[in-house]
Amino acid sequence: MRGAVLYGRGDIRFEQRETPKIIEPTDAVIRMAATCVCGSDLWPYRGLQPLNGPTPMGHEYCGFVEEVGSAVSSVKPGQFVVGSFATSDNTCPHCRYGYQSSCMHREFITRAQAPFLRVPLADGTLVPTPGVPSDGLVPSLLTTSDVLGTGWFAAEAANVKPGSTVVVVGDGAVGLLAVLSAKQMGAGRIIAMSRHESRQKLAREFGATEIVTERGEEGTVRIKDLTKGIGADSVLECVGTQESMMQAIRSARAGGFVSYVGVPHGVELDGTELFFSHVHLHGGPAPVRRYLPELIDLVLNEKINPGRVFDLTLPLDQVAQGYRAMDERRAIKALLRP
Amino acid sequence: MRGAVLYGRGDIRFEQRETPKIIEPTDAVIRMAATCVCGSDLWPYRGLQPLNGPTPMGHEYCGFVEEVGSAVSSVKPGQFVVGSFATSDNTCPHCRYGYQSSCMHREFITRAQAPFLRVPLADGTLVPTPGVPSDGLVPSLLTTSDVLGTGWFAAEAANVKPGSTVVVVGDGAVGLLAVLSAKQMGAGRIIAMSRHESRQKLAREFGATEIVTERGEEGTVRIKDLTKGIGADSVLECVGTQESMMQAIRSARAGGFVSYVGVPHGVELDGTELFFSHVHLHGGPAPVRRYLPELIDLVLNEKINPGRVFDLTLPLDQVAQGYRAMDERRAIKALLRP
Repeated sequence: MRGAVLYGRGDIRFEQRETPKIIEPTDAVIRMAATCVCGSDLWPYRGLQPLNGPTPMGHEYCGFVEEVGSAVSSVKPGQFVVGSFATSDNTCPHCRYGYQSSCMHREFITRAQAPFLRVPLADGTLVPTPGVPSDGLVPSLLTTSDVLGTGWFAAEAANVKPGSTVVVVGDGAVGLLAVLSAKQMGAGRIIAMSRHESRQKLAREFGATEIVTERGEEGTVRIKDLTKGIGADSVLECVGTQESMMQAIRSARAGGFVSYVGVPHGVELDGTELFFSHVHLHGGPAPVRRYLPELIDLVLNEKINPGRVFDLTLPLDQVAQGYRAMDERRAIKALLRP
Repeated sequence: MRGAVLYGRGDIRFEQRETPKIIEPTDAVIRMAATCVCGSDLWPYRGLQPLNGPTPMGHEYCGFVEEVGSAVSSVKPGQFVVGSFATSDNTCPHCRYGYQSSCMHREFITRAQAPFLRVPLADGTLVPTPGVPSDGLVPSLLTTSDVLGTGWFAAEAANVKPGSTVVVVGDGAVGLLAVLSAKQMGAGRIIAMSRHESRQKLAREFGATEIVTERGEEGTVRIKDLTKGIGADSVLECVGTQESMMQAIRSARAGGFVSYVGVPHGVELDGTELFFSHVHLHGGPAPVRRYLPELIDLVLNEKINPGRVFDLTLPLDQVAQGYRAMDERRAIKALLRP
């Protein structure tokens, strides 16, 4: 088979790789229905994260079980499944506390931008849908594998409750789905920080009630203006830079909640400023596995349409175009079909 | 009158100062029943925090209302009162959310190591006791003004619940009262990190079930050993240094809660490590005013005896000896009686 491999800055290739097979008895191999490019893939693509040689890419996936190892009991060949970008046994103490993305046996999925994928710890990682979903639902189901689950975690970690005033920093796919998640959780106001018209439009469609185009200190001042000088109850940081993190912390009210869900790049927090900000801070790799059953259900019942974040669909072998379009912000998120 | 003034490193003087009087109609002046030296006073005393010239010291206080401004209605002369180290109007949005120590009109009390003290925003800051408490209860009542309220906030901000496994980093008076607070909140295990025998003894008296003497990385390893490799549910950081902060974060389980209640000195948090630790982080100046009614009640009903942290009692004019004894860790906390 052929799959996506990153060679260096801006150099993604779709090239021959070994077709994955069962290695451990707890593995499954799935045949991809759809995969996609993640905002986090852009860090190494942009040369902002070191590579150890050519690196197979991709960690968002859904598709059909092709084969399972001898110890797998909860999914079987032919089933349609979605799994988290982080594998989990779903039985260790961290998993039982709901932090499956810190599972004691966690591995991060790579190699998903390919027609076949080996998924370790299949029983604890994959969730089957009841029956085979219609093809039109596949993009939305795919989002539950990472980008929606991550936006959902952002909202939950920032304590979004009915009536909350929410700010979302970042208008990438995670930020947009954080808006959708906050809306689902009953937020009263959702202020999306975005400078891009098409993204603002989608943010409004997902539930944003206000848009702030300013950034950094100006953005913070604007949020304070909009909240009578108090700050927001919940601020969802969906970027991962120093600027966005400080913008988030400074936009929250004393006692408010700040979540951060993108791997921070070069972020350093000053203890004294954090102390006097009085915020709650929580984040990390989203425990997507915890949310999968609920999110799959919302998608299948067409309560939400998170697949709207895919504004570019490409055949898998044109994966390089997907990276380029996202890098240049011409696309919010690129869906790849084998 | 005479009061404590810090001139520089190790140089605390008890010297003539103007007797405070009502300035704003919302002020009260109180006659001190007792005051004390705070762990945080040691930062500037040790030259680890810059001074802008001679600085009147002290922010923990309780005593009798001597005089009130024309706008004060909730306390009156002759009443015994306790107040927070941070003043608050107790009506602004931050106060209503329970973060009175971020009140929009907050001032930090200084000048309390003196026989008289002006307290701004008296209505929102002071809480009167029902009647005049017996003298034996004064030390415990004094602790509610800061050190107990701060330990209580540490436990609450770290989400201590019945049955929780709790770690307390720091065996100063705040750490010891954080142990007491965790016990009150029903913690199942309370692991106190302390290397000092007398403090270990008091920690056990307050409810610690285990003592860990190791620090830094060794301390973290020990906590992991004691929690089957998982980490604690709640870690209460009561020191404020880089080492203690990292010790706290690394001792919590994924999804666990870390609180920090001492002003951080030189603390920088690496975003990536914090992200993958998966902890909840919350702290700041303790909203003591929120807790005062409940804590005063617990003291007056003799459910708790937080005044046990005072292992040195001095006449106020010997305040310099109190600083010295605490600096040299000969005393946990020095009570000062005018």
